[in-house]
Amino acid sequence: MLAEFDLIRRYFTPDPTSCQAQPGMALGIGDDATLLAPRTGHELAVSVDTSVVDVHFPADAPARAVGHRALAVALSDLAAMGAEARWCWMALTLDAAQLADERAAHAWLDAYAQGFLDGCARWHSVLAGGDVTSGRLAVSVTVMGDVPAGQALRRSGAAAGDIVAVTGALGGGAGGLAVWQRGERDLAHPLLRRYLLPEPQLEAGMVLRDFATSAMDISDGLLADLGHICRASGVDVVLQPEALPLAEGLTDALGADKARRAGLSGGDDYELLVTLAPAHLAPARQALAARGIALTPVGRCVAPGAPEANTARLEAAMEGRGWQHFVPPGAPFGEAGR
Amino acid sequence: MLAEFDLIRRYFTPDPTSCQAQPGMALGIGDDATLLAPRTGHELAVSVDTSVVDVHFPADAPARAVGHRALAVALSDLAAMGAEARWCWMALTLDAAQLADERAAHAWLDAYAQGFLDGCARWHSVLAGGDVTSGRLAVSVTVMGDVPAGQALRRSGAAAGDIVAVTGALGGGAGGLAVWQRGERDLAHPLLRRYLLPEPQLEAGMVLRDFATSAMDISDGLLADLGHICRASGVDVVLQPEALPLAEGLTDALGADKARRAGLSGGDDYELLVTLAPAHLAPARQALAARGIALTPVGRCVAPGAPEANTARLEAAMEGRGWQHFVPPGAPFGEAGR
Repeated sequence: MLAEFDLIRRYFTPDPTSCQAQPGMALGIGDDATLLAPRTGHELAVSVDTSVVDVHFPADAPARAVGHRALAVALSDLAAMGAEARWCWMALTLDAAQLADERAAHAWLDAYAQGFLDGCARWHSVLAGGDVTSGRLAVSVTVMGDVPAGQALRRSGAAAGDIVAVTGALGGGAGGLAVWQRGERDLAHPLLRRYLLPEPQLEAGMVLRDFATSAMDISDGLLADLGHICRASGVDVVLQPEALPLAEGLTDALGADKARRAGLSGGDDYELLVTLAPAHLAPARQALAARGIALTPVGRCVAPGAPEANTARLEAAMEGRGWQHFVPPGAPFGEAGR
Repeated sequence: MLAEFDLIRRYFTPDPTSCQAQPGMALGIGDDATLLAPRTGHELAVSVDTSVVDVHFPADAPARAVGHRALAVALSDLAAMGAEARWCWMALTLDAAQLADERAAHAWLDAYAQGFLDGCARWHSVLAGGDVTSGRLAVSVTVMGDVPAGQALRRSGAAAGDIVAVTGALGGGAGGLAVWQRGERDLAHPLLRRYLLPEPQLEAGMVLRDFATSAMDISDGLLADLGHICRASGVDVVLQPEALPLAEGLTDALGADKARRAGLSGGDDYELLVTLAPAHLAPARQALAARGIALTPVGRCVAPGAPEANTARLEAAMEGRGWQHFVPPGAPFGEAGR
């Protein structure tokens, strides 16, 4: 049986300096709470995301991907605010049965911690605390970033006439799940990589602060997430489904129709969805292209109720309402809702 | 089947103004992240605590107590830093089977939300965001408070000669679990109340900022938690077990020997354990007494390795190592470790 404190010391405080002050941190891991000294002139952006086994990732997903992914999906919300990632807290619930086999538990934790901590280093998010307990495998990650006061990207700033655009490519999350279900296990597979090792678009978010009128991340599917921006901003949207940038290999893997559907309503893409004034599109694309990031216009905002608005019709055609994060009891992983 | 967004709207955004700016909050629930504007001259104290069904609370615990308790145990860590509670984030994982029965699910959520939100109001912790998903019932609560810069109470400040003292009374958590296991279900029972509806000692923590050299909250049992202060501060302790203030009714419920053990190594008390210079004991007791809070000296700090130090001997006599938060597979709730 692994003990909580030993496990935290062994896997999640690899660097003795992590218990000491870091820039902006007055007290690190090891006390009742972490103490932070926020930057003046900045607002803090905070979000929490839970990833549950058999709901958000398959039980046999590689442990490294579980760690990577739990952090990435949480950080994606900071990206959507245009915030710079600073700190994260990891509440890890381990499977009690898994812990009983110490050797298997250590192998799993080694890989899990690697995935999580590599992500911390990669995305500049310092692990500032957490909790480890037993139950059914799940990870709740709280992330905190900062953004110059008043400059955060919200869902509510879109106006009629704005361009709707997305970073990167869509449908990769749903495509990756589909190839996983067909038995693909190679993390180098481009679609599987999109699903199991997503990248939060933090850099894109910070660049887009200068250009976008609204933003959110695409976690529940483009149409569902676009609905949030429409409601928050009081606009409707004319979407051009044929303009959607689809993930590499998606059409080959799923066929043209399912690939289009995955782009419109598949979840787990973690790209950014933004609106911006037409005059800002070219400079935004240029600024992002300099960092190797694509920004593709996929539609435009119109007045609410405008007859040309087509997202409600597209949603009806999808016969679904985007990702639902509740699994009906007994449903196998990846079916029905999530 | 309940949908995530409907459920959040119905139970956890009861007040339409909660989506708008509150003092220190630039953007509330409803976007990708919350935006906070921290007070200048203050540090932020942040902690996360997960409460899992059958590990931290019984599956048939009243839903109101589950909500109350999850928040209280998280806030207890802020109390231990001397921080003022400001915001919290609730990552709630609901039982998938429970959700299938909509009527039962709504009744449970009504009571759960009442317990959680009453706690938010009572302890001045604004619900600033969260996540709701399905799996095995668990709640991860992230709490954030603030404290004037440099004034937080840490585990590392105790010195030889300091008095060791505790707020309130001990053993009530373990005593409450014992009476629960005997079938007691009345939340007005003083021991059950201590176990299922604990109170974070936030006010005591803020008062003790002016007096204590170190502090932590007693969640794993006095001896285990004292060990953390000893290691962090480089001291040993002479404890007077007969001086421990035991919870009301504990000796009657458990008998003298088990009551003493519950006070020394029972978990889930959520009182504060502090050290303070002898000259500060009387004024600290006076300041706390004015707020109806008891502070009882239970020992003193000595140099590490001093022959009179007795906590290791007491721990050995307990034949246990305080609360262990991992349940051995198949262990019934409340047995062996937790």
